[in-house]
Amino acid sequence: MTISGKQLIGGEWTLGEAGTFLGVNPKSGHQLNPPISIASSRQVDAAVRMAEAASKKFRHSPISVRAALLRHCAEQIMALGDELLDRLSAETGYPKGRAEMERGRTCNQLRMFADYIETGAYLDARIDTALPERQPVPRPDLRHVNQPLGPVVVFGASNFPLAFSVAGGDTASALAAGCPVIVKGHPSHPGTGELVAQAIAKAVSQADLPRGVFSFLMDEGYAVGAQLVQAPAVKAVGFTGSFAGGTALMALANKRPDPIPVFAEMGSSNPVFLLPKALSENAPGIAQGFVGSFTLGSGQFCVKPGLVIAVDGQPLQAFLDAAKKLVEETPAAVMLNERICHSFQQSMTDRARGKGLDIIARGKASSDEEGFHSQVTLFTTSAAHLLENPHLIEETFGPASIIIKCRDREEMMRVARRLPGQLTTTVQGTSDEFGEYAELMDQLTETSGRVVVNGFPTGVEVCHSMVHGGPFPATSDRRFTSVGTNAILRFVRPVCYQNYPAALLPPALRDDNPLGIPRLINGERTAEPLR
Amino acid sequence: MTISGKQLIGGEWTLGEAGTFLGVNPKSGHQLNPPISIASSRQVDAAVRMAEAASKKFRHSPISVRAALLRHCAEQIMALGDELLDRLSAETGYPKGRAEMERGRTCNQLRMFADYIETGAYLDARIDTALPERQPVPRPDLRHVNQPLGPVVVFGASNFPLAFSVAGGDTASALAAGCPVIVKGHPSHPGTGELVAQAIAKAVSQADLPRGVFSFLMDEGYAVGAQLVQAPAVKAVGFTGSFAGGTALMALANKRPDPIPVFAEMGSSNPVFLLPKALSENAPGIAQGFVGSFTLGSGQFCVKPGLVIAVDGQPLQAFLDAAKKLVEETPAAVMLNERICHSFQQSMTDRARGKGLDIIARGKASSDEEGFHSQVTLFTTSAAHLLENPHLIEETFGPASIIIKCRDREEMMRVARRLPGQLTTTVQGTSDEFGEYAELMDQLTETSGRVVVNGFPTGVEVCHSMVHGGPFPATSDRRFTSVGTNAILRFVRPVCYQNYPAALLPPALRDDNPLGIPRLINGERTAEPLR
Repeated sequence: MTISGKQLIGGEWTLGEAGTFLGVNPKSGHQLNPPISIASSRQVDAAVRMAEAASKKFRHSPISVRAALLRHCAEQIMALGDELLDRLSAETGYPKGRAEMERGRTCNQLRMFADYIETGAYLDARIDTALPERQPVPRPDLRHVNQPLGPVVVFGASNFPLAFSVAGGDTASALAAGCPVIVKGHPSHPGTGELVAQAIAKAVSQADLPRGVFSFLMDEGYAVGAQLVQAPAVKAVGFTGSFAGGTALMALANKRPDPIPVFAEMGSSNPVFLLPKALSENAPGIAQGFVGSFTLGSGQFCVKPGLVIAVDGQPLQAFLDAAKKLVEETPAAVMLNERICHSFQQSMTDRARGKGLDIIARGKASSDEEGFHSQVTLFTTSAAHLLENPHLIEETFGPASIIIKCRDREEMMRVARRLPGQLTTTVQGTSDEFGEYAELMDQLTETSGRVVVNGFPTGVEVCHSMVHGGPFPATSDRRFTSVGTNAILRFVRPVCYQNYPAALLPPALRDDNPLGIPRLINGERTAEPLR
Repeated sequence: MTISGKQLIGGEWTLGEAGTFLGVNPKSGHQLNPPISIASSRQVDAAVRMAEAASKKFRHSPISVRAALLRHCAEQIMALGDELLDRLSAETGYPKGRAEMERGRTCNQLRMFADYIETGAYLDARIDTALPERQPVPRPDLRHVNQPLGPVVVFGASNFPLAFSVAGGDTASALAAGCPVIVKGHPSHPGTGELVAQAIAKAVSQADLPRGVFSFLMDEGYAVGAQLVQAPAVKAVGFTGSFAGGTALMALANKRPDPIPVFAEMGSSNPVFLLPKALSENAPGIAQGFVGSFTLGSGQFCVKPGLVIAVDGQPLQAFLDAAKKLVEETPAAVMLNERICHSFQQSMTDRARGKGLDIIARGKASSDEEGFHSQVTLFTTSAAHLLENPHLIEETFGPASIIIKCRDREEMMRVARRLPGQLTTTVQGTSDEFGEYAELMDQLTETSGRVVVNGFPTGVEVCHSMVHGGPFPATSDRRFTSVGTNAILRFVRPVCYQNYPAALLPPALRDDNPLGIPRLINGERTAEPLR
């Protein structure tokens, strides 16, 4: 495989008509070849038209075909071999080990959705049979099933060039649901994106599906994305990225003549509460876990713990001492791109200049003169200062975190009540301590998608029970998750068939239950055929 | 019970501080006593504060307590007896039989949600157990459950003063989920609303729940509703009404610092397609069903069939002749209020004046000089005219419908493709005809919440399989239904508990499964405890 810098428009690779740009290796700051072309408005239109046409067929594709498509995607991504891993490292600065882990996660995720749709559970098939004799009015035969929404636009994230990008969770769950996908690739890893798009295109061919089922468009700026979100045939948007980016897409989608849902995962500060006994018992151990978590991947995770909240005193001091030592030993790390690196440095400068925030430790500075490097930075402040300056609660993307010293438990509770929506909140405590802090725990389950106990938030398991979501501003819609099997629910809608001709019913609703799936028949769950 | 004209603010009945208005009997146009008070901004605030405080307890209330609350609501509504039915008739002009039917439906709906939450299905409880030995990283214990969103504001509809109003589907499903409810009562049936609010207040007391769980506020205009939708503690909105009303609330909710979901059911024109063989075989029978459906309740149903589409020719002419006769025999009927009556008359005048639309039949005019009466009106036009004047596809609230004559099957298909989102679409055909028209049927399942075959759309069954929803502009969010057991999904969100202390887990997620509900444990569905 080679990287062509072309757009994939419904199975055809063609050069973008709106100019080119070059990828950049953030380790060196050097540009990468080949030039990456940019899709024109005409080309965006063409991709949308092909997705719309493909949708009519794709939505009727058997579950087995979609499951095969997802498995083919995983195989084809693996078949890209080292070329993918090397390009990913070159474009992101991630070590090859991380690239390999993320590839494994991405392929597992594709296979998980294949397995999950085969169970038929997400279809929520329901049948209420006719009651022709019922008084005062008969009941007709009513059948309910979840159907795909139609074409979905996916915006890849910069920080997970595989797992939250071209073949990431949004694409996997949308394809699993039977929605064609148009990916707007992230300009921070265009070559990685194209390689994965090549893999998906092959998988679409292998599964013998209409080629409009998948397109991949590139842009360095915002024009392609904006046009996609406004295209009438597009029915939903998946996005992982910044608050500014997510809310801009939400505004565009809401201004359409027919508003469509934007599932934007916009990150959060992922507070960590340290309860006093846990701190007394194991301040160094907790410090080690925390420093490992907030510096992982140069702090470029949406679930990076950016705030630590604890009552001030000797145990917290022991934690600070341990964390300080660990931070000071932490080497500089490569950041994803110049913009992210610059924003991080700017934020560090602003924070250092502002009153009320103290730097307690900095990691090693980079000795490289080239490339985009971060220096780990750990701040402290008082809870009173945080409460007066709530902008400090906002996410900073990069390896920085703030330790919030509370006067007492009541002040810690006040901080908890002020937290806006979070992807995660973490509590470190001893087993007998949580009961005492039940009010705090309860408060956190109101504002978080996931509450982590005695662990750290980094590491988002791909499984049935995961919630990668949470109240605004963590995401645009708290009722959904973007990771885990339930992510598919974002891309389906229910349809009711009343007295529908048997021969035209979707397979999930036919009397003989050809899919063998569980159904709710007159309120009873069963996989038996209807007699 | 007497009607006091007061507001119910967290269990206390107090006079609204922002003036009064009088209900009106639409049959006579006469005002009804007593004066109805209007909530002040301060009073709206108080109701929201009480709902917020109640939410902290209510969200932990056992399912059995919420089920009892819903059943108490049904009992208390029944206990209102004839006073409720008489007031409903006086405020809406509906015959007592209709009032009784709607009361039965409303109480059944409350009981249905009680039964449904007891199954625990809507909780979607999931457990993925820890894999401490897994390589390269262990898996933590992860548990997933749906939790209530928090306080919900419900806007009652004018046309279903019980089933889609104070104790209607929105309130029932929100309370079932564990969300406190604040109802903004409809000024068209304020006395009916208050009586039902009295019943709910008693039920809240009986269930020994915090009184902030339910409030009922009245307003003749928009101030109370606007303030409620913008209140920070409010987490979702349920609305049934006009397109203008629904989109205004959506805009307010989207402008909040934290946007919240508005579930607006805004109605549609509910097209009916008549296939040629069915018309040939039974034009008079279909005409009878159709005229009955579009004139039911003075045509004041969101699922009223407002468009009929068929290929022109002799069979359609037979249908028109039969329908004409039936319409001409149909007496005038009372409309819900002056505004609705005036809008309907204005719309009839505009349509009669406009070119391209012919009146083929009118019902009897009212002989009453007082009150608000409609005259049934049936139009015809050509498909070409409709396609050039797509505003004719918009809903007209009241007993009017348009028959669209298509040149041929292809033109009928063109009309189908132009239809915006619909609550329902209906097809009348013979059993061997549907296969021939599979493309049409397929198109309709893309744009409708419910597809009705050989029936009529009026009559929205309250059951598991119902979808009262559909793409915009029929509703604000095609992924949900406002009728049927799945309506509860609008008011919950998933939360993930990672390594959470056993004693603090929600009952649905405890190892011993005290609720005895089905759960997805490591991908397997079971009601067994976890060992």
